[in-house]
Amino acid sequence: MDLLKKDAEFIWHPYTQMKDCRKFPPILINRAKGVKLYDKQGNFYYDTISSWWCNVHGHNHPKIKSAVKKQFDALEHVVFAGFTHEPAILLAEKLISIAPGKLKKIFFSDNGSTSVEVALKMSYQYWQNTGKAKKKNFISLDYGYHGDTIGTMSVSGVDLFNKVFSPLFFESFKAPSPYCYRCPMGKDISHCGMDCVNALERLLIKRSDTICGIILEPMVLAAGGMIVYPKEYLSRAAALARKYDVHLILDEVATGFGRTGKMFACEHADNIEPDLFCLSKGITGGCLPLGATLTTKKIFNAFYADYKKKKTFFHGHTYTANPLACSAGVASLEVFREEKTLDRMKEMIPLFHRGMEKFRDLTLAGDVRYLGMLGAVELVKDKPSKKGFPFEKRIGLEVYKRGLRKNIVLRPLGNVIYLFLPLCIRKKELEEILDRTYAIIRDSDYFLNK
Amino acid sequence: MDLLKKDAEFIWHPYTQMKDCRKFPPILINRAKGVKLYDKQGNFYYDTISSWWCNVHGHNHPKIKSAVKKQFDALEHVVFAGFTHEPAILLAEKLISIAPGKLKKIFFSDNGSTSVEVALKMSYQYWQNTGKAKKKNFISLDYGYHGDTIGTMSVSGVDLFNKVFSPLFFESFKAPSPYCYRCPMGKDISHCGMDCVNALERLLIKRSDTICGIILEPMVLAAGGMIVYPKEYLSRAAALARKYDVHLILDEVATGFGRTGKMFACEHADNIEPDLFCLSKGITGGCLPLGATLTTKKIFNAFYADYKKKKTFFHGHTYTANPLACSAGVASLEVFREEKTLDRMKEMIPLFHRGMEKFRDLTLAGDVRYLGMLGAVELVKDKPSKKGFPFEKRIGLEVYKRGLRKNIVLRPLGNVIYLFLPLCIRKKELEEILDRTYAIIRDSDYFLNK
Repeated sequence: MDLLKKDAEFIWHPYTQMKDCRKFPPILINRAKGVKLYDKQGNFYYDTISSWWCNVHGHNHPKIKSAVKKQFDALEHVVFAGFTHEPAILLAEKLISIAPGKLKKIFFSDNGSTSVEVALKMSYQYWQNTGKAKKKNFISLDYGYHGDTIGTMSVSGVDLFNKVFSPLFFESFKAPSPYCYRCPMGKDISHCGMDCVNALERLLIKRSDTICGIILEPMVLAAGGMIVYPKEYLSRAAALARKYDVHLILDEVATGFGRTGKMFACEHADNIEPDLFCLSKGITGGCLPLGATLTTKKIFNAFYADYKKKKTFFHGHTYTANPLACSAGVASLEVFREEKTLDRMKEMIPLFHRGMEKFRDLTLAGDVRYLGMLGAVELVKDKPSKKGFPFEKRIGLEVYKRGLRKNIVLRPLGNVIYLFLPLCIRKKELEEILDRTYAIIRDSDYFLNK
Repeated sequence: MDLLKKDAEFIWHPYTQMKDCRKFPPILINRAKGVKLYDKQGNFYYDTISSWWCNVHGHNHPKIKSAVKKQFDALEHVVFAGFTHEPAILLAEKLISIAPGKLKKIFFSDNGSTSVEVALKMSYQYWQNTGKAKKKNFISLDYGYHGDTIGTMSVSGVDLFNKVFSPLFFESFKAPSPYCYRCPMGKDISHCGMDCVNALERLLIKRSDTICGIILEPMVLAAGGMIVYPKEYLSRAAALARKYDVHLILDEVATGFGRTGKMFACEHADNIEPDLFCLSKGITGGCLPLGATLTTKKIFNAFYADYKKKKTFFHGHTYTANPLACSAGVASLEVFREEKTLDRMKEMIPLFHRGMEKFRDLTLAGDVRYLGMLGAVELVKDKPSKKGFPFEKRIGLEVYKRGLRKNIVLRPLGNVIYLFLPLCIRKKELEEILDRTYAIIRDSDYFLNK
């Protein structure tokens, strides 16, 4: 039986209606290099979504690969309770040296969902440990996304993914998102006075005594539709968290490690000081799963007590701080330094943004938004009214199929087509990707409107 | 600053009261081979808990290492939606070929908690997709443990870890555990008629119309205290799940991959046919994080529909089916075959069990229990009354410290001291570990009872 037949026989793919695979099977990749994925026949695909937003320096980066191989020769894994090892310590030191604000302690886990679960649990238990037992809820944004576990879904707002599971969720309060193209307050950005922040404050006025924290993706609501929002929202939300004595939990799982042009997206605004900070995806450069939750000494100290006081944080995953993943993380941060990745980006980003601006003239392009190396086009049926395509039409899928024929991976988020590019991308590759993506959307017009 | 100082400065260790680390810092490991962990000075520790129950064939196994390195040369990672790759397909095929019952489909994730979250969500959505919308709850055991995320904690019962978070949990129903040494029904095993199963049935009679499934660790409630239970309980619980039309969800995260002497612990009972089956830990031989949830075609088919019907399972993690982890998984299963690991175990297990039996004469040994390559001693203050030591006394910690001085890792679960041995262990190593562990517990007697 060939491999694709076995795939169809045995595998249930993530975020996939498996019935679609019958007509449209997954593509079998057997090697990758830089920004290109290759199948057995040597056809390539530009990894324009960085393999679900995690690849940073390109596939098969020699420095990261060699670090992981070298680490395997010494120590592939050891329990991280009662024991420790150099890769975790070096990665912790490096991450804390570049982290914003007062983040001084790191707790490792395995993926983005667990990095957020850890943050929620730490925030919650902090208030219990410090005598504020009424604080049991969280505020999140109605287009926010923080993971697929029950806890992280409880603070997420993407209904298509979550709604069926909602009876299992703990209660959380949703604030309106700064989704300026479709302002939840019915305002226009030129005169809005950032009314959505006021809605957040109203919620805090009413509820802050029961709220542990506000959880946010800084600058971009990624899975919610690559909604890039004004840095003023982030600044003001951070100020409100402080004013009302609730934690600011920043989820940089998608936005971290240079993707938005800064090492962390929260650096776009001034003086953001998160209490809890969630990392994953790009933390290993995109080769291995690893999660990390950073926090302050203040929070750490609320758990630091004699054992019998029962203030310990009882959480841990078997592969917490896996040495192989940590060694990749250390190597990835060294690549940032050696290749001057963020400086290189400063030249590439304006080219990318100019390319994205061109999309505005497309008939289907309702909104065009971008930040750093991510850019998105929200497709609409009718530009003046902003009327979208119905769910059933699956326009994203149509664009995706057309993309693959031109070697571009345009995996959609509903009606939003986006590029989420590896930072190693070169000018020529960038131009080709932009040109092809433009043509794909332009040529989809006839099909989609027929 | 030396590494241990940096560890103390930056790292928050899992399941650790960090105040303890001040007096008793973690041990810095820099290499490992077989069943031994080594520090920089060349001191070794027997990895008697298989690095949190995940190491299978010993550390730094050449075959697994070489598979991962080779895979890195080709493809370290690619998004698993719309794309696929050989290591995932081969691992899926191999796992399904050895899985019990009618498990025919596999969904990958990153760790044990997520493998259980996936199972819970699949079970829940199955009933929603098939028109049984009232089914929204789960039954689990009161000493069961299934992970540290909010969803998995909701079906776990280890109060020390969970209690503080309980307001965040979804409702679940707890059945009494088959904890024969401290029978929850107040019976003795010689005449109990397995009354705890009857309690489970009473719960099902009352609630089955609202129950999605029963989640169980087959044969051993591991984190609950290495509680080995009779296979009849498993058989009868499985029969009840079928009788009352609720899913049987087996969590083999800890027990899978040979640890109990069978490839999967549920094989100890006859004809167990789980609907959902959770794997992690040993799945990669213990080198990299990977989770997998196996299920039946019946469950898969309830999600297989036109996209617009909204029956899709919207779940996925970035590193789902990471090629490096999958290649380790394939290699580990090949090692089972090539080294005839399970056959070797057939010789080793009786030696181990005879060694464990000797522990019964220790003054502190209230209960001695074992299965396959795991064995536990529950320490008590007074054998006739089974009275335990108080929580504050932290007797487990005392034994742990004494263990380390004799190169043995006896990380306790409350008052339970256990061995959870790598399957590659040799007779001489086994004997040494048993002798030393015996002596450590024997010599703790004076201290603990003073």
